[in-house]
Amino acid sequence: MPKLTCSEFKSGRRFMGRLPHGVDLIKSIEAFCGETAVAMATFSAIGAVTSVTLGAYDQKQQVYVTYTKEAPLEIVNCTGNISLKDGNPMVHAHILLADMHGKTIGGHLFSETIIYAGEIDLVELAGKPLERAYDTTTGLMLWKGLS
Amino acid sequence: MPKLTCSEFKSGRRFMGRLPHGVDLIKSIEAFCGETAVAMATFSAIGAVTSVTLGAYDQKQQVYVTYTKEAPLEIVNCTGNISLKDGNPMVHAHILLADMHGKTIGGHLFSETIIYAGEIDLVELAGKPLERAYDTTTGLMLWKGLS
Amino acid sequence: MPKLTCSEFKSGRRFMGRLPHGVDLIKSIEAFCGETAVAMATFSAIGAVTSVTLGAYDQKQQVYVTYTKEAPLEIVNCTGNISLKDGNPMVHAHILLADMHGKTIGGHLFSETIIYAGEIDLVELAGKPLERAYDTTTGLMLWKGLS
Repeated sequence: MPKLTCSEFKSGRRFMGRLPHGVDLIKSIEAFCGETAVAMATFSAIGAVTSVTLGAYDQKQQVYVTYTKEAPLEIVNCTGNISLKDGNPMVHAHILLADMHGKTIGGHLFSETIIYAGEIDLVELAGKPLERAYDTTTGLMLWKGLS
Repeated sequence: MPKLTCSEFKSGRRFMGRLPHGVDLIKSIEAFCGETAVAMATFSAIGAVTSVTLGAYDQKQQVYVTYTKEAPLEIVNCTGNISLKDGNPMVHAHILLADMHGKTIGGHLFSETIIYAGEIDLVELAGKPLERAYDTTTGLMLWKGLS
Repeated sequence: MPKLTCSEFKSGRRFMGRLPHGVDLIKSIEAFCGETAVAMATFSAIGAVTSVTLGAYDQKQQVYVTYTKEAPLEIVNCTGNISLKDGNPMVHAHILLADMHGKTIGGHLFSETIIYAGEIDLVELAGKPLERAYDTTTGLMLWKGLS
């Protein structure tokens, strides 16, 4: 049976901040990481959006299916990480949203998700950043070089 | 385009604990922070409730819409933070719950959410605590003084 | 009113890793903790499963009700911890999943949850590990010895 493989890090800088009104959730985090030289991190966020683009991976076809909802929704939870893809910080995150009746939708987070207001807790992971590479089993870009 | 603005912290004390049977989720965390002098923190919790009060922000009317469910529900995830409002530690958290069939509801967590059993992972953030102030764009109490 | 009771820890080793294709989610984390001598930890995970076994606690009967879904689903969030039960590292986690339409199910995570691909952020908590013992009020195995 294959094993859970990991890389070990030290806790780096710890940021708490505001996701500003009107920005793209993924792009604003990637821009922040670019400017502050964060190459590897983990984060969670809560808040609200004015629209969201979600998806799920079709494990049979090995493609992402995506859809956009133009609606005010609470971000109940957004859990993600930053690592390197082609040398640049890339966000991988999943998100759960709820409407005014508590009804939820969730999945893989894509760009074209626009913030109404949001709070992010981001922990830099100090050490050699993980890099993504094509995985032939799943068709996904997964971390390579773990042991 | 506005930028993600942050404040940097050191990891402070790290607590793992039990949310006791019968207490109000928010009030018990705020009481703990008051007693242990935690002014700024991030946390996650899992467990179960006997009743929950949830809400979502009506972005058009700029008011919270809330509702209470008197039912045994699992806390699938509760993600939140503590910062200062009027000088006192204030919880801001979102919560996701599920019933016996896995059916979920989620949103902004309010008081009048009563714990059946729960576990909390709370990390104090050492440094100058963030303070909330009225934000004219959203009508919410958001962190001020970030850069 | 009973109080939130906690134990204080130092951040220990911090691992980011891959949940490999085809493994049981809980068993692979417990095996990792056994091999790396992690007795107390907190973690979150995102990814996808090929099948999942979920449950919720029936607070009246004081038993878990479980069910299995054989379906490709996104792990929107999995939040959990590791502590000791009968001297061995035991995972307690809750999980939220979503299908291709964003429809969610969630609850208490059980074994017989099989990974398609997954990423885990696991923080060891250094200090005296918490141990689980039977709690007469709830019928659950909860942490003992907190103050």
